[in-house]
Amino acid sequence: MSNILLTVEDVRQLASECLLRNGCDEANAAAVADIITRAETDGCHSHGLMRLAGYVAALKSGKVDGTARPKIRNLAPAIIQVNGGGGFAPLALEQSRSHLVEAARSNGLAALALVNIHHFGALWCEVEPVVEAGLCAMACTSYKPAVLPAGGHEALYGTNPVAFGWPRPTAFPVIFDQASAVMARGEVMLAAREGHELPAGTGVDADGNPTTDPNKVLKGALLAFGGYKGASIAMMVELLAGGLIGESFSFEAAERDNGDGGPPQGGEFMFAIDPAMFGDADGWSDHSEKLFEKIEAQDGARLPGERRRRNREHSVANGVEISQTVMEQIKGL
Amino acid sequence: MSNILLTVEDVRQLASECLLRNGCDEANAAAVADIITRAETDGCHSHGLMRLAGYVAALKSGKVDGTARPKIRNLAPAIIQVNGGGGFAPLALEQSRSHLVEAARSNGLAALALVNIHHFGALWCEVEPVVEAGLCAMACTSYKPAVLPAGGHEALYGTNPVAFGWPRPTAFPVIFDQASAVMARGEVMLAAREGHELPAGTGVDADGNPTTDPNKVLKGALLAFGGYKGASIAMMVELLAGGLIGESFSFEAAERDNGDGGPPQGGEFMFAIDPAMFGDADGWSDHSEKLFEKIEAQDGARLPGERRRRNREHSVANGVEISQTVMEQIKGL
Repeated sequence: MSNILLTVEDVRQLASECLLRNGCDEANAAAVADIITRAETDGCHSHGLMRLAGYVAALKSGKVDGTARPKIRNLAPAIIQVNGGGGFAPLALEQSRSHLVEAARSNGLAALALVNIHHFGALWCEVEPVVEAGLCAMACTSYKPAVLPAGGHEALYGTNPVAFGWPRPTAFPVIFDQASAVMARGEVMLAAREGHELPAGTGVDADGNPTTDPNKVLKGALLAFGGYKGASIAMMVELLAGGLIGESFSFEAAERDNGDGGPPQGGEFMFAIDPAMFGDADGWSDHSEKLFEKIEAQDGARLPGERRRRNREHSVANGVEISQTVMEQIKGL
Repeated sequence: MSNILLTVEDVRQLASECLLRNGCDEANAAAVADIITRAETDGCHSHGLMRLAGYVAALKSGKVDGTARPKIRNLAPAIIQVNGGGGFAPLALEQSRSHLVEAARSNGLAALALVNIHHFGALWCEVEPVVEAGLCAMACTSYKPAVLPAGGHEALYGTNPVAFGWPRPTAFPVIFDQASAVMARGEVMLAAREGHELPAGTGVDADGNPTTDPNKVLKGALLAFGGYKGASIAMMVELLAGGLIGESFSFEAAERDNGDGGPPQGGEFMFAIDPAMFGDADGWSDHSEKLFEKIEAQDGARLPGERRRRNREHSVANGVEISQTVMEQIKGL
């Protein structure tokens, strides 16, 4: 099937209207549509319009409150908690971000604990505004069990992405956003949808046998990246976005989930650090650019986020191509 | 050659005497000897007595000041900076640790920036006392270029270990400590010393060609674990332990180093988080134990640090075996 060309604003409007028609109020629809639009614009289709079906399913089943209002409180000088009230994460993030930035600037660093939210978006979009405010930032969130623990045979950890970003006053920020799984579940879903095979070593089927069939992996488990080391990272994410902030581990989120296809209730952990307060107030930025120059000087090496930057420029100038399949699906919602 | 059996106290005394004879004062010798002893006791020989030769070389060449006194100051409510005065890291860590713990308990989380130190020890030993104080802690440090950036062909990042620990009031803390390289440089050195081959995919020689010869890898470069994702982690470590705190990147540390075989001057970044302040003051610990139970319930899976715990118990009860080669080397110092 042929693709459809949309402008960035078309994407935003399409997403927003679909969410409004399915139970989101204006504020929530705008916040979720923004996250979807940014993913689509940056070339990450797996987290773009393709996810609308899941968002809508969660609204329709009543699992997610599309009219939730986040409640923000300071738990300590450097800890902000935002309770999403059972809504999607984007509005909670949007409203609490300035509190995080302010607390980091006052204390040197600060943490944001998001609880009682449903997270279905891409993390780099959430880290980027904090990084654009001149702070180093990290975010992580868990999901439903999809990844084997080191040495184990049953999915226990979520795909558990970690995003980390570094501010660059005069250039596109350096941000990486990577699943603790060898491959993001969204990418596996995309492969399943498009009928592609997965690279060997990506996952196992429900019986624990290696397979390259994305549909079988979706019913089985993914491997962590880099063996036991990636599994350590996945465990760390469970502890930060679950145990630390008083939210669900992936296995608990799955136990409580109604299986409507949308994101389970869970938490997210984010922290922000102000490099200007660490003793090299005038020099930290120029200094860090030297590292980035060294990376870019090597043939074949590129900075994390570089592909996103190019996709974004291209999308803004030329629009975004959406598959007919996804478009039909959205019209059906 | 046969091995020599030492008690834990023998190891400590051997290390301490050797350091005292080669330029450390009492406080520095005791702090470094403690780190060496803990590595040896926990079964990590690559960071134990084997490293004395490097410590001594750095003292003899005058690169490291064995009588340095760390200076501690608060850069912000949640930032402690300790300037090691060109000494080894252990004394700086020992003296600043309580400041970090206190700042984390006052603010919810806090960071420790170690600058002007020479780091040659294992990170879990440094994280463990903070974790034993009831806090979640993370530490990272860079070194000299040893690891390829994603897509690159020349070593740029250090092996850049990251340690992360979670407090358990009634059990051995869960701590992982892992190099961003597929294998720690210490392990490669051990393989070179003992004449073992490395697993395929560990590193490349000086011309960028894959090799399993540890001596060639020591002259070439290691790969990051898990491909570009591990390289992202290595980059993050450069930024936190270098750019953020105003210390050297690995490539800068190497440029300035005199090549005496000891550790270059550099920095370390650590942070501590108080789980009791994140909204689940009474429940966080019992809750987290449920995750650990789920991991341990899977055949073949074990908690990070479990092998260390068993080695430590064994060493305390039965002593530590040291190779004759290492013993001869130490006597020569």
